[in-house]
Amino acid sequence: MEDWKSTYRLLTQCKHFFHCRLSPNFHNSKPFCLSGSRYHCSQPSELVKPYIGNYQQEFQTFKHLPVSLGTNPWNRCRSQYRCFASQATIIQRRPDFSTISSEDLSYFKNILGERGVVQDEETLDAVNTDWMRKYKGTSKLMLQPRTAEEVSQILKYCNSRCLAVVPQGGNTGLVGGSVPAFDEVIVSISHMNKIISFDKVSGILVCEAGCILENLIAFLDNQGFVMPLDLGAKGSCQIGGNISTNAGGLRLLRYGSLHGSVLGLEVVLANGTVLDMLGTLRKDNTGYDLKHLFIGSEGSLGIVTKVSILTPPKLSSVNVCFLACKDYASCLKLLLEAKRKLGEILSAFEFLDHGAMDLVLKHLEGVRNPFPSSMHDFYVLIETTGSSESYDREKLDAFLLHSMENDLISDGVVAQDITQASSCWHIREGIPEALMKAGGVYKYDLSIPVEKMYDLVEEMGVRLGASGKVVAYGHLGDGNLHLNISTPQYDDKILSQIEPFVYEWTSKHKGSISAEHGLGLMKANKIHYTKSPETVQLMANIKKLLDPNGILNPYKVLPPSLFTKS
Amino acid sequence: MEDWKSTYRLLTQCKHFFHCRLSPNFHNSKPFCLSGSRYHCSQPSELVKPYIGNYQQEFQTFKHLPVSLGTNPWNRCRSQYRCFASQATIIQRRPDFSTISSEDLSYFKNILGERGVVQDEETLDAVNTDWMRKYKGTSKLMLQPRTAEEVSQILKYCNSRCLAVVPQGGNTGLVGGSVPAFDEVIVSISHMNKIISFDKVSGILVCEAGCILENLIAFLDNQGFVMPLDLGAKGSCQIGGNISTNAGGLRLLRYGSLHGSVLGLEVVLANGTVLDMLGTLRKDNTGYDLKHLFIGSEGSLGIVTKVSILTPPKLSSVNVCFLACKDYASCLKLLLEAKRKLGEILSAFEFLDHGAMDLVLKHLEGVRNPFPSSMHDFYVLIETTGSSESYDREKLDAFLLHSMENDLISDGVVAQDITQASSCWHIREGIPEALMKAGGVYKYDLSIPVEKMYDLVEEMGVRLGASGKVVAYGHLGDGNLHLNISTPQYDDKILSQIEPFVYEWTSKHKGSISAEHGLGLMKANKIHYTKSPETVQLMANIKKLLDPNGILNPYKVLPPSLFTKS
Repeated sequence: MEDWKSTYRLLTQCKHFFHCRLSPNFHNSKPFCLSGSRYHCSQPSELVKPYIGNYQQEFQTFKHLPVSLGTNPWNRCRSQYRCFASQATIIQRRPDFSTISSEDLSYFKNILGERGVVQDEETLDAVNTDWMRKYKGTSKLMLQPRTAEEVSQILKYCNSRCLAVVPQGGNTGLVGGSVPAFDEVIVSISHMNKIISFDKVSGILVCEAGCILENLIAFLDNQGFVMPLDLGAKGSCQIGGNISTNAGGLRLLRYGSLHGSVLGLEVVLANGTVLDMLGTLRKDNTGYDLKHLFIGSEGSLGIVTKVSILTPPKLSSVNVCFLACKDYASCLKLLLEAKRKLGEILSAFEFLDHGAMDLVLKHLEGVRNPFPSSMHDFYVLIETTGSSESYDREKLDAFLLHSMENDLISDGVVAQDITQASSCWHIREGIPEALMKAGGVYKYDLSIPVEKMYDLVEEMGVRLGASGKVVAYGHLGDGNLHLNISTPQYDDKILSQIEPFVYEWTSKHKGSISAEHGLGLMKANKIHYTKSPETVQLMANIKKLLDPNGILNPYKVLPPSLFTKS
Repeated sequence: MEDWKSTYRLLTQCKHFFHCRLSPNFHNSKPFCLSGSRYHCSQPSELVKPYIGNYQQEFQTFKHLPVSLGTNPWNRCRSQYRCFASQATIIQRRPDFSTISSEDLSYFKNILGERGVVQDEETLDAVNTDWMRKYKGTSKLMLQPRTAEEVSQILKYCNSRCLAVVPQGGNTGLVGGSVPAFDEVIVSISHMNKIISFDKVSGILVCEAGCILENLIAFLDNQGFVMPLDLGAKGSCQIGGNISTNAGGLRLLRYGSLHGSVLGLEVVLANGTVLDMLGTLRKDNTGYDLKHLFIGSEGSLGIVTKVSILTPPKLSSVNVCFLACKDYASCLKLLLEAKRKLGEILSAFEFLDHGAMDLVLKHLEGVRNPFPSSMHDFYVLIETTGSSESYDREKLDAFLLHSMENDLISDGVVAQDITQASSCWHIREGIPEALMKAGGVYKYDLSIPVEKMYDLVEEMGVRLGASGKVVAYGHLGDGNLHLNISTPQYDDKILSQIEPFVYEWTSKHKGSISAEHGLGLMKANKIHYTKSPETVQLMANIKKLLDPNGILNPYKVLPPSLFTKS
């Protein structure tokens, strides 16, 4: 054992190695990429780009599934193509909501002009359907305002007419929050996509809510800054939608949640009031900080029209390593060590188990096992981002050496260039696609205290036995588990073994049944698993205060039964 | 010019220098401390300790001011000892509030026991008076619950009896938010001071709201972690009060605001409902994130009883340097450079102008000018905190060298040990004390976009002419200006030249009239300078929803006129 550690130490010291295998069988292994250049990414965005590929590919896969899109979205919950499993919920259209009349159309055309009022079938079909093709509404009207004032006029009118509204950004949500449940008017913010200002001293960006995340990332990259938010759907998702769903994504471990980085919002309330909270200040203790109500409320309290966000300076050095651990306890110890030793440069700590690795190797083309001679029980991907290539790499090397000496790592590779870094990320990011290719999959996005997280995976394995393969991966650094049960095909018997057990287990361990996706239509009735009755009641009271007629994104987030008129 | 830069470069390279003066007159200057040891603080808390000294001294100074504490706090606003200037506001006790009866006392004694019901005059005198001795209430009763259930019983009863309540933590607030305005019942959370749990993997601390900040800092230090919050009053202030006022403090630049680091709260509402939002998860997107309503609402929406907070690992290396700049534009460029070059290790960027430096040198004993041979117009204190002594120092040296080469720095010193670091901090932290010793002082705590921040100082200087000396300092990295007007004595004519001009100017430039102190009693009627009427109205509606009788911390935060019954 000492031998390979000495070899690694020697290699680290002389710094002439191209591909360091932190492995007892170092000399026998083949590097998975022979590129000899030392890995260094001067433009982090280049490194990130390859990840999108997977999502886009996944998106295409879903797009071409032979789904039958009935008019009632609930039927589809029991179809073979249900991508996210969940017990079906039956809701009724609220009878007090109006339906669109010709007078309504005239009014909207008067405000927005002909081109702001969309009624053609093909476009409506697309915007009625969610990204996963799981939910489909029957809206006959999409409005495309260009200013907050126009949004205000729309909502004021809809409120007076009791016309239900669904706000829509890039429509990339995963829980049915951004499409109509029935015939709600779709208010798209896509045309409100201007960057308003950027302050290079403070790093504060102000923009309209319809800006596509990737465009903001590119704009900031040119200015030498980064968005504190990055996620796979960045090519389509919009910042207003990101804020409304409190998107988590790849940079949360480093830059924290949007509650910390969003400095201000402009929001239009259901009655048309434009709430100007568009501060550009890091510190402002004047009264209640109301913007937080709209971060993560999924468009049910107001429509976000402008955003002010604090962006950190771009850092030039990125390192990625892919490690194997013998057990989950080692992964946890490694996380603690990484936080301590890598400290301020740690930017990602992802994990996957052997089941996830098996699937990726079996179902994805072009993925090579970094450790071809052996399989391990757990794998961890660590990324660092800092301002100095040499210092960061030395820090990473010291951390790896120390972790090896303490037997936290069984094996590992350090990416030497962008291609290798992308290969590492491809394994982690390719899991959802591999799961889809493997057959039916029941997916759960959970937050669980990290020390207990894997207990659920093991309990679920025992519970299901041979009837399903339990696969786990996720953002370990954030305590976010993506739990998946892969089966040859969907089966209600299996579902009944999973649910409500998975929610009850999560609730019992003070976890969250939605870590980063929100509740939307899918889990509105499941909020009680995570939130106390008193808290849910207060949410409902706040909803009634801000939107007394309940026109904004109805049926979503909170149980519709709380709003049934007595 | 090249000469001294070469000298510095040489010194930096050979690394045998004890005291680097980044100065053209390097060879002639005397180091302000001759300690030869290289500055390195393995326990950052040791470095921080000396700062407290100033605050404690300041506190004692205030304690012994020969103030006459009348029963009407408003009279004192026009006395000589008004520490924070502001136009006086006259309010009336709300006639619908009950007064304490013997039945009330029996009820509280029944719940809390004799020792939880405090009526002795001396204790009441202390808790009726704020830290600055600016406000004094006339409460005849302080209650000391030990559990959230007891808080719930108290509030439920007070709500039914329409007895007004002021929640109190360490009573270190600066805007009169933590003392009664009239005869409100004081509910102290000081006895709820247990640490409930700490998770060393995730760094998540759960504790009761009455824990003193310094005790939490010490507890975490032993665990190898730090509180993401630190401030001068840490020896007395309590975490529940910190959260209720959304305290900013010294670590905001690095770790962000409490909206980012607080993960969960337990809060008791006015009607006694215990709201369990005590999550310990980094990610939880299930419904509206209501905890943010209570962060910064100054106890007017509920009483915080438990807290869950994310704490970062302790880092071992701290560096401090004190620099001179020729103009404010250079300070801004230096800030930009520091963010970029120091990036992830930058932990403080403070500034002071020559007026502030003059006062400190004149009025504080033991402070020595780091640049004895010349005075400069602006000074900047930069602190870095990281995980590697040598890397961090090299980063700092490279940044300083680059900044010198670009003429952003006129002169500078880098602290070589804790004593020198403390001396640098002492200059910055000693300004409030020096201001007090210089005579009357009108103090304003403002957030202003950094590029415009110093314009206000200059305009105020022109406006006041010889009648007042305008002194500026603050957290430049956070955009937080502490604007002070020093005068031989208080004078209403001067005040009328300052106010409302200072608020109007701040408002016009989209600033905040309270960056980190809150509104309390002092600025409740001034909220309109920072927040739009629609936003203030929504705040009032939320207050009415959560506290229909308005018993919680009345007269504070929002204009009392919004709650006058028609």
